[in-house]
Amino acid sequence: MTKPMSLGLSMRYLGYHAAAWRHPAVDPGGASDLTHFVNVARLAEAAKFDMVFLADGIGIRAKDEPPGSLCQSAQTAELEPLTLLSALAALTSRIGLVATASTTYNEPFHIARKYASLDRISGGRAGWNIVTSWSDAEAQNFNRDSHLDYGTRYERAAEFVEVVKGLWDSWDGDAFRHDKAGGTFFDPAKLHVLNHVGKHFKVKGPLSVARSAQGRPILVQAGASEAGMEIAAASAEVVYAVPHDLDTGRAYYADLKQRVARNGRDPDSLKILPGITPFIGRTEAEAREKFDLLNALVEPELGLSYLYGQMGNLSAHPLDGPVPEPNDPKVKSIAKNLLALARRENLTIRQLYTTIAAGFGSRILVGTASQIADEMEAWVEAGAADGFNICAAALPIGLQDFAAEVIPELQRRGRFRTDYAGSTLRSHLGLPLPESRYGTPVVPPR
Amino acid sequence: MTKPMSLGLSMRYLGYHAAAWRHPAVDPGGASDLTHFVNVARLAEAAKFDMVFLADGIGIRAKDEPPGSLCQSAQTAELEPLTLLSALAALTSRIGLVATASTTYNEPFHIARKYASLDRISGGRAGWNIVTSWSDAEAQNFNRDSHLDYGTRYERAAEFVEVVKGLWDSWDGDAFRHDKAGGTFFDPAKLHVLNHVGKHFKVKGPLSVARSAQGRPILVQAGASEAGMEIAAASAEVVYAVPHDLDTGRAYYADLKQRVARNGRDPDSLKILPGITPFIGRTEAEAREKFDLLNALVEPELGLSYLYGQMGNLSAHPLDGPVPEPNDPKVKSIAKNLLALARRENLTIRQLYTTIAAGFGSRILVGTASQIADEMEAWVEAGAADGFNICAAALPIGLQDFAAEVIPELQRRGRFRTDYAGSTLRSHLGLPLPESRYGTPVVPPR
Repeated sequence: MTKPMSLGLSMRYLGYHAAAWRHPAVDPGGASDLTHFVNVARLAEAAKFDMVFLADGIGIRAKDEPPGSLCQSAQTAELEPLTLLSALAALTSRIGLVATASTTYNEPFHIARKYASLDRISGGRAGWNIVTSWSDAEAQNFNRDSHLDYGTRYERAAEFVEVVKGLWDSWDGDAFRHDKAGGTFFDPAKLHVLNHVGKHFKVKGPLSVARSAQGRPILVQAGASEAGMEIAAASAEVVYAVPHDLDTGRAYYADLKQRVARNGRDPDSLKILPGITPFIGRTEAEAREKFDLLNALVEPELGLSYLYGQMGNLSAHPLDGPVPEPNDPKVKSIAKNLLALARRENLTIRQLYTTIAAGFGSRILVGTASQIADEMEAWVEAGAADGFNICAAALPIGLQDFAAEVIPELQRRGRFRTDYAGSTLRSHLGLPLPESRYGTPVVPPR
Repeated sequence: MTKPMSLGLSMRYLGYHAAAWRHPAVDPGGASDLTHFVNVARLAEAAKFDMVFLADGIGIRAKDEPPGSLCQSAQTAELEPLTLLSALAALTSRIGLVATASTTYNEPFHIARKYASLDRISGGRAGWNIVTSWSDAEAQNFNRDSHLDYGTRYERAAEFVEVVKGLWDSWDGDAFRHDKAGGTFFDPAKLHVLNHVGKHFKVKGPLSVARSAQGRPILVQAGASEAGMEIAAASAEVVYAVPHDLDTGRAYYADLKQRVARNGRDPDSLKILPGITPFIGRTEAEAREKFDLLNALVEPELGLSYLYGQMGNLSAHPLDGPVPEPNDPKVKSIAKNLLALARRENLTIRQLYTTIAAGFGSRILVGTASQIADEMEAWVEAGAADGFNICAAALPIGLQDFAAEVIPELQRRGRFRTDYAGSTLRSHLGLPLPESRYGTPVVPPR
């Protein structure tokens, strides 16, 4: 039997290409404009995507920092994910809505409450992408000089997620009786007080939000590191991975699914969706033209700013020379992946930043719809993916191309739905209802 | 010249009466249902209200506490204000959207960002009601055993508001050039980095959200205490006051407007809108019937729970006896207003809780539309109000009565608009554009 794919659309900013705003067909102010996102979300819903997704960071680098740190980029102003997705919830009816929020600079009660509220507002279509935040620009907006160390971040994240899940279990799915005559609004036996006391958090509960049609929001993670994969294995239902070749992808997939099983979960209850940035043409040459058109619009300062967060300021090095080894050990650990990519493909600084600026780190596919569908199928067949997170280079045009060319190709091959079967994100993804820690129902009785 | 009024609609839960959910015409599950709020917000917009408003608390009392602490109330489950108002922003076009958020259990960067985003999403219709949170139930969801003391809360609040205003000044109104050919997305001279370092917060900035059509969200406060009034005088543009008689209302109004002037602001740049809960009938007797119908639905346990937060557990005292003086000095200071009300009107415990349960502490008016309009006019004429925050007892019925009966009466008297003149909340309220601390434009050029 042909295995169908899950498809998400990453829609932060104006797409994932650094120069997307300069594309002739793109509205440069779109990232600050609800109308742009309504258009994108409705196109994605018409194409039957499982979900739209908003990555996030809670700070931009300021202009008093090294050259290349604040560039002429559309990524300086945007709408905030939870407010934006709540507005989109009101203007869409089926598509899932996944927003990123940091466990380092938030409190679990707020996160549990806001996502539960979005989940009710959308009729069970919400998801939370769990991140721990590693940039100093974010730390400096939250009373710190630099970001928390890796160990503390992930220890806090693991406890944070447990508290959020616990708060989401506050009310059973059948708790609300609404018996006007008897004066019984809810059944007290179906309300649970968490009373969490841990290392990082003391949270009493209960949560003041009722359960949604999907029981609770979907948990999403990008888990690439050891601690990240452990959180994913314990709790995540979707993982955005970024392996750049099939072998790495297959190894990652097998590793993570085994960890899920070791946590006593069905491996199929976590979906692995690698990020891809497709450039689609009727011919390969046309696809390549689309790719080159955007890349030519990346000024060096902008390109270097894409490397700054992970590799520091490289502006003193020749752009067409090799990527230097960082001296700062702190930078070094963050730079690991980029450096490996540069070495593997023998890239200059300019080539590295162009690669990153073209898809913000996701895997770039340039070709015809048929070639791209082949590649996607190959990954699913090889056990490297359950679907993909489409990180369109520029919006809405990259989505329009994908919806018009690749989705019909996937549908012809039996790899993607032609309509939604259910109304919740959980249903689109084929995920089971969550279990309450109290062994009680998580959805209202039919 | 007749002075027009500003009108807000408080729409938390299912209205401000504790037993609203038991009213035969009310949907008991409405407080957890977007459809209910869409209906209410659209009715309020059709009636030309300046704004809808959501009060908030970030915790409910749990069932392991004293009797009366968690009651059979609809106030146990609701939607979260910022997600809810963002959804409503997408489904309304003119009405202002004001949400409460606490300065004690939030970080200024998140608040600045989320409200700025709502402000853009709504086309300049957002407002932030600043509260400091005084309940232990909230503290216990945020790593504390009890709430912060008054002095610390307000000191933190004052600094918090300054940081938020500073972040809102990050981008000038004309900062975004969007020059594709030249590669200039924004003008760096029109971006400002806050670099705030204070006692409670260290926040670098800049904010990653562009300004809205009204320059920045409206600041709302309820300032009744000395420190609260000072914050209001320094920054607030709307104040919800709760004086219960005309003399107190007039004194409060004069005091606060003088404080605004002492802060170098035009006294008219702050609007004072006392909260009222109207029960409207074609005759006084019919209005009284509506009032009595709801009051009869308040069980003692529910009634006592309304006093619990401010007066502690009174269940050991006779319901039809006098309201006892609290022994606990901490309770005593919070209980001050309730106790004064009980003494002034010689109320029993049952009478006190019925009064509070009927309008959650706002002033109750029972009468015909003409009587209620008379009372509202008298307050405006006497210099005790610039308008009112209508805390309908039950929704949507209380709003439907007010819109059908009182608003036309106010319009006939020239006291309320018959249509919106502008599209922003600032415009509805007749407030001037804010000033940037950098002396730069706060709205995009025409």
